[in-house]
Amino acid sequence: MNQSQVNGDLSQPAHGQRRPSVLLFDVNETLSDMAPLAGRFSDVGAVPQLARTWFAGLLRDGFALTVNGVNPDFATLAREQLRQALAGTTLEMELDAAVEHIMGGFAELQCHPDVVDGVRALSEMGLRLVTLTNGATSVAQRLLGDASIADRFDRMLSVQQAEAWKPDARAYRYALEECGVEPAEAMLVAAHPWDTDGARRAGLTAAWINRESRTYPSYFLAPDLEARSLTHLASLLR
Amino acid sequence: MNQSQVNGDLSQPAHGQRRPSVLLFDVNETLSDMAPLAGRFSDVGAVPQLARTWFAGLLRDGFALTVNGVNPDFATLAREQLRQALAGTTLEMELDAAVEHIMGGFAELQCHPDVVDGVRALSEMGLRLVTLTNGATSVAQRLLGDASIADRFDRMLSVQQAEAWKPDARAYRYALEECGVEPAEAMLVAAHPWDTDGARRAGLTAAWINRESRTYPSYFLAPDLEARSLTHLASLLR
Repeated sequence: MNQSQVNGDLSQPAHGQRRPSVLLFDVNETLSDMAPLAGRFSDVGAVPQLARTWFAGLLRDGFALTVNGVNPDFATLAREQLRQALAGTTLEMELDAAVEHIMGGFAELQCHPDVVDGVRALSEMGLRLVTLTNGATSVAQRLLGDASIADRFDRMLSVQQAEAWKPDARAYRYALEECGVEPAEAMLVAAHPWDTDGARRAGLTAAWINRESRTYPSYFLAPDLEARSLTHLASLLR
Repeated sequence: MNQSQVNGDLSQPAHGQRRPSVLLFDVNETLSDMAPLAGRFSDVGAVPQLARTWFAGLLRDGFALTVNGVNPDFATLAREQLRQALAGTTLEMELDAAVEHIMGGFAELQCHPDVVDGVRALSEMGLRLVTLTNGATSVAQRLLGDASIADRFDRMLSVQQAEAWKPDARAYRYALEECGVEPAEAMLVAAHPWDTDGARRAGLTAAWINRESRTYPSYFLAPDLEARSLTHLASLLR
């Protein structure tokens, strides 16, 4: 709970916070729209809702390993957890083919509609933009390259080079070291409350991107900012 | 990875392991059949598959907090995560009523069909039986009381009295201390691979209860035993 520390360093107050110099963006769901993956589940004969079950189970198992100091490979967990999620479903194809079809959907995901304008606006405000994902940097490179905004990002980082997955503090510290900034100078931008919570515990500020008008869970530390989109975030930070 | 340590203390080999003196049972899904909760989701107008999404999301968020040294209240997370899971669904009742209806299902869960005979058999083999849950002990007391097998259990423990949730090693160590046994004398019995993995990392042996013929994820440490049911486990340990 480093809130007092964060707030103790106000020199340029904006919404009660110093404006950050670096924005660290989560990638999956925060920048990419994962909704099309549900269609891939339908394609193979599974209920589309299973996409969310799969992704939650993947993070559950990754975090279980993180608790015990293991830093697993995201794609390996994604693929195996997919087999777990599909077990019990009568598929319209072989399991291997179904897994490949769904995993192939990752490579075709696009940014949410607000991301291109939002990233350009935040970049033009002079903020340094960096990605920090539990997955591979190649996913962010492909996603942002396809959207022609890769050049707006200073760095694309993965916890594969850190000691642990987010929300372990070591993941955020790795990004801070790579960027050469103090925690209070960096703001984590994420659609997942577990990520904003982890960032705040590591001394960063955090912005929660809430595109679906959800309620933030009370058991996590509240974000410093809540925005409906990246364009909304830009207006809040301006 | 304490496998060598566990195997280094063989005095009564059974399947390559010393037979444990204490069995630590996980409760939700391992002893209780959670399938009826899916029907509760249907009752409120949600897809039944959402039950699994909800439970995976609840553990995901609980483990995220565990990563950062927080020991949250299971029921609080369950209730709030249910609101998250139901967001986006057009319900047939008010959200509050839907949440209460589904949470009420917990109090009516029954043991899997193999549990009563399995517990009696394991108890009659002279093994000390103990429950260790991330939830409240009252859930185990009600569940096992209804099945008339509560008297077979030596202790019913919750991580609420420990420093952290399973799969943090401190959760298992708490149970070992309460039982007065060394890690190698205790076997964790669970339906969840993240739990058997955590127990093995804490130096216990572990039995995976695999009622649905699933494949054990390769990214977790393999269990020492795999059983189709508690009666099967009893036959393996006999």
